[in-house]
Amino acid sequence: MSQHDDSSHLDHFWAVIPAGGAGTRLWPLSRSGRPKFLLDLAGSGRTLIQSTLDRLQPLVGDRSMVITGRAHRDAVIEQLDTMNPDHVVAEPSPRDSMAAIGLAAALLEKRDPEAVMGSFAADHVITDPEEFARVVSRAVRVAQDGHLVTIGITPTGPATGFGYIEVGDQLAQEGAFSAAAFVEKPDAATAADYVERGFLWNAGMFVVRPGVLLDLLAETDPDFAAKLRAIAWNPMLLLRDWPTFPRISVDHAVAEPAAAAGRVAVVPGSFGWDDVGDFASLQQILPEVEGVTVLGDEQRVRSIDSAGLVIPGGDRLVAVIGLDDVVVVDTPDAVLVTTRARAQEVKQVVEALRESGREDLT
Amino acid sequence: MSQHDDSSHLDHFWAVIPAGGAGTRLWPLSRSGRPKFLLDLAGSGRTLIQSTLDRLQPLVGDRSMVITGRAHRDAVIEQLDTMNPDHVVAEPSPRDSMAAIGLAAALLEKRDPEAVMGSFAADHVITDPEEFARVVSRAVRVAQDGHLVTIGITPTGPATGFGYIEVGDQLAQEGAFSAAAFVEKPDAATAADYVERGFLWNAGMFVVRPGVLLDLLAETDPDFAAKLRAIAWNPMLLLRDWPTFPRISVDHAVAEPAAAAGRVAVVPGSFGWDDVGDFASLQQILPEVEGVTVLGDEQRVRSIDSAGLVIPGGDRLVAVIGLDDVVVVDTPDAVLVTTRARAQEVKQVVEALRESGREDLT
Repeated sequence: MSQHDDSSHLDHFWAVIPAGGAGTRLWPLSRSGRPKFLLDLAGSGRTLIQSTLDRLQPLVGDRSMVITGRAHRDAVIEQLDTMNPDHVVAEPSPRDSMAAIGLAAALLEKRDPEAVMGSFAADHVITDPEEFARVVSRAVRVAQDGHLVTIGITPTGPATGFGYIEVGDQLAQEGAFSAAAFVEKPDAATAADYVERGFLWNAGMFVVRPGVLLDLLAETDPDFAAKLRAIAWNPMLLLRDWPTFPRISVDHAVAEPAAAAGRVAVVPGSFGWDDVGDFASLQQILPEVEGVTVLGDEQRVRSIDSAGLVIPGGDRLVAVIGLDDVVVVDTPDAVLVTTRARAQEVKQVVEALRESGREDLT
Repeated sequence: MSQHDDSSHLDHFWAVIPAGGAGTRLWPLSRSGRPKFLLDLAGSGRTLIQSTLDRLQPLVGDRSMVITGRAHRDAVIEQLDTMNPDHVVAEPSPRDSMAAIGLAAALLEKRDPEAVMGSFAADHVITDPEEFARVVSRAVRVAQDGHLVTIGITPTGPATGFGYIEVGDQLAQEGAFSAAAFVEKPDAATAADYVERGFLWNAGMFVVRPGVLLDLLAETDPDFAAKLRAIAWNPMLLLRDWPTFPRISVDHAVAEPAAAAGRVAVVPGSFGWDDVGDFASLQQILPEVEGVTVLGDEQRVRSIDSAGLVIPGGDRLVAVIGLDDVVVVDTPDAVLVTTRARAQEVKQVVEALRESGREDLT
């Protein structure tokens, strides 16, 4: 981190990368066996999880940990060839983020009493990694003082696809504020109001001492926190206790109650973040062009008087004529045709395919 | 023809089936090597040229002749396995319809002095073959009297994609009228006016004694008519003279001048005719359904809140969400996405592919 005069506060900083979720709204590009984080959605030559590690490694060196599903552990290890494979932890079964991040916290608390952990999803896109590094570095300083720190994204518009963070008073630490509340995804009018009032997007990024996180969890669910800590000392307990853990997110289990109690800090950041939740959002992160945005080989796309997103897959030609706002995703066994406005509804197709016994396509 | 008490007038009736044109506006379904007439576009299990012969055979028995391009002769013979392969004539090179139909006329004039020929394109669709047979039978009677007879289709609406026939006075023969004029494809306002005034669609169907057709041609282009007749007596002249023949349609060479001179009869018919010129017209001939019309395996299509035409090809799934009026045509090496209103513009894609050296896809 040459741009920082003093980065010694990062010596005990660990990156925790939860890599879960298939990204159903990106079907047929993403599949249950080929989830979103394993795909190169930015057209950069690196998959989303590779880019996630790429931008964290300058901050953490080899102090990174991935929590993923059992089915994806081998693919993650193959893609993250600069990472210690022992640091790729497989969940016994899918739970929500509190179990995954709580397990990472328990393992790190035992391993390094001075650790600060930062949790960053494996399937988000960030276009300005240097600014990201500066913001994370700032958040680590705040977390060292014992705060649960979230990084809030300065909105670029009144998005309805993200949760928001209400910003409270400035704290003593530079660039840090009290997080007054976490609020759910709003409707359009509420989103405009939130932006007007300076709310930030909740990107699900937490920076915290592992012990602080587990202590906060212990206040709402002492049994859950105790069991996570016990696994760190006796890994044999993992298979026994994991299935008993509640399916709950870090937001609900810890961040929201802690914010209400005035114990969460937020560090605002502006580094071109997107969660690439659907094809409409995918198009926004790709270079802007006249007409049709192509992710992939442009020679395989012919368009006349059209606008939207075309993703050619395999060896086929895709021709689009006279359609605005269209999304065409071509893969070897399935092709999707929709609009950006309706792109989220692809989930229903995936569900219908499962119900009709076509899991092979999901 | 059991429905006719007397069909002896059909004993010398020959069907001539010109099978030309790639059907570029149906790309990527139709290709230069797999033209429209070789495809099963009605979902009936029979290709267009097979259905054409199917509905003519009750009228003509084995008195049928196909004129097609050299590249397609083998495929035509393979598809028309009930037809004498010697009656499948290959054009030395592509010319317009006057050369093809004039050659058939010259061959038939020599073969059978009492012949009446009827020319019916290989790539049209007719949904009521029994009514078609009745109308053709009527036209044959009128042609026996020495008329050039065209069958005019009673419009089902003010179509702008077809030429029209202006209907004149009733003739002595039952169901026959003088054809006052042939007019080109109109704009929408003119089409509405034509329908109001009782004009008929020009389906390019002619029924005529071969000698009458050639004599009419001789009035406007005596050299052309003489050379066609000479080929019938000396087939060696075909290769020499064919390249010199003008690229002109029967309409322009014969029918329009003859109509202006009051020498063309029209027999109206109403038997569910369509030329299936593009995907919009293709959808109209397929069974009407709620939402998306599927030509092919419906199990390969999933649609949500959409309307239009989907043609799945090969083994892939096609999912369509939230698009009205959409056309999706999936083939193993190309997929087209457009609207019914813009479907004709697919020609431009085909031209662009040729210009960029991708003839393999055209």
